[in-house]
Amino acid sequence: LIVKLDYPQPVQALILQLKRLPGIGAKSAERMAIWLLQQAPSAIEEFGNSALLVAREIHSCPVCGFFATHEGCVICEAPDRDISVLCVVEQPLDILPIERTGIYHGHYHSLGGRLSPLDNIGPDDLRIAELQTRVSHGSIAELILALGSDVAGEATANYLIELLQLHPLRITKLAQGLPVGGGLTTADSLTLHRALENRGSVAPSARLP
Amino acid sequence: LIVKLDYPQPVQALILQLKRLPGIGAKSAERMAIWLLQQAPSAIEEFGNSALLVAREIHSCPVCGFFATHEGCVICEAPDRDISVLCVVEQPLDILPIERTGIYHGHYHSLGGRLSPLDNIGPDDLRIAELQTRVSHGSIAELILALGSDVAGEATANYLIELLQLHPLRITKLAQGLPVGGGLTTADSLTLHRALENRGSVAPSARLP
Repeated sequence: LIVKLDYPQPVQALILQLKRLPGIGAKSAERMAIWLLQQAPSAIEEFGNSALLVAREIHSCPVCGFFATHEGCVICEAPDRDISVLCVVEQPLDILPIERTGIYHGHYHSLGGRLSPLDNIGPDDLRIAELQTRVSHGSIAELILALGSDVAGEATANYLIELLQLHPLRITKLAQGLPVGGGLTTADSLTLHRALENRGSVAPSARLP
Repeated sequence: LIVKLDYPQPVQALILQLKRLPGIGAKSAERMAIWLLQQAPSAIEEFGNSALLVAREIHSCPVCGFFATHEGCVICEAPDRDISVLCVVEQPLDILPIERTGIYHGHYHSLGGRLSPLDNIGPDDLRIAELQTRVSHGSIAELILALGSDVAGEATANYLIELLQLHPLRITKLAQGLPVGGGLTTADSLTLHRALENRGSVAPSARLP
């Protein structure tokens, strides 16, 4: 008399869909689904429709790789951005943090990942040909490589530096050093190594009160 | 020249919806949304549709409180379940773990929460009147209170015990004691207290090899 009881099929399907999300395990997916089930049907529909709307309305901008609507790309079509600076990031997710610093007003180019031979991700899997095309148009004076500071990010940066060396542009990389507010005791030794290596002269104005 | 850049509106709406899920913060919601955006449109649609299907197809069973489809409730309509035993749980989420033990074949009654005066949750906010109706039909011989072993769960259990005391049925509670596989050193002192209090005689068969 062992009864194999489970959630009704639509609930199981929802749990499965939630479980596919990054960082969500079976237990979290179940808890999330049950929570959703306890909302009003209109609220559950709003949840589902928000995904459908994104599927219909959002696509990757063919130029920069950020998310665009049918009305266009907020980055590429902004009239007041500096077209002489191009910031290369690994993924569209990296664009907003840079934007939030308020210091950068150039354009972006998302590669859609980084070189990773172990995962079979080579130059052809990234938006590198598109980057070459943009660079060869000649209007870019500086290319900022804002890639991860781990091995794969460094490898991707080095590949791009070599690939683009013949173009007449300045290639820069984000600085590495102590995070602001971080003490010496909490910094790992490689970060501290870079902070020493990249140390800068203190301007007189910063030395005087 | 500070450009206020953000995700396109549909993406922002999706992030907001994901952020409402239990245990999901702003960063996780953003990561989940971006991950979804990188799937094929058909996969994103499947995700959204799974929620819409649940909104349309699933409702709370008016008898037991578990999730039912328009075809009915898999628990209440199962022909081979023991109608003389009723297991009271706080929420529908608690039913499957009990079911997975394979030891229980009776019916269930989800209260939809527990008494919590601080959160303004009283008897009228739970499915207690429905429980009384089921009990008064007279076919139930044992009522198992499978409620949480914390203060609110105990308070809810005590309330039900007093409420139903005049009915001719046996009321039981889940045993408290050491979790299986748990050592004495890791058990908290209250659990150990209950394990001692509820200690049982060892049957001869269990003592001999």
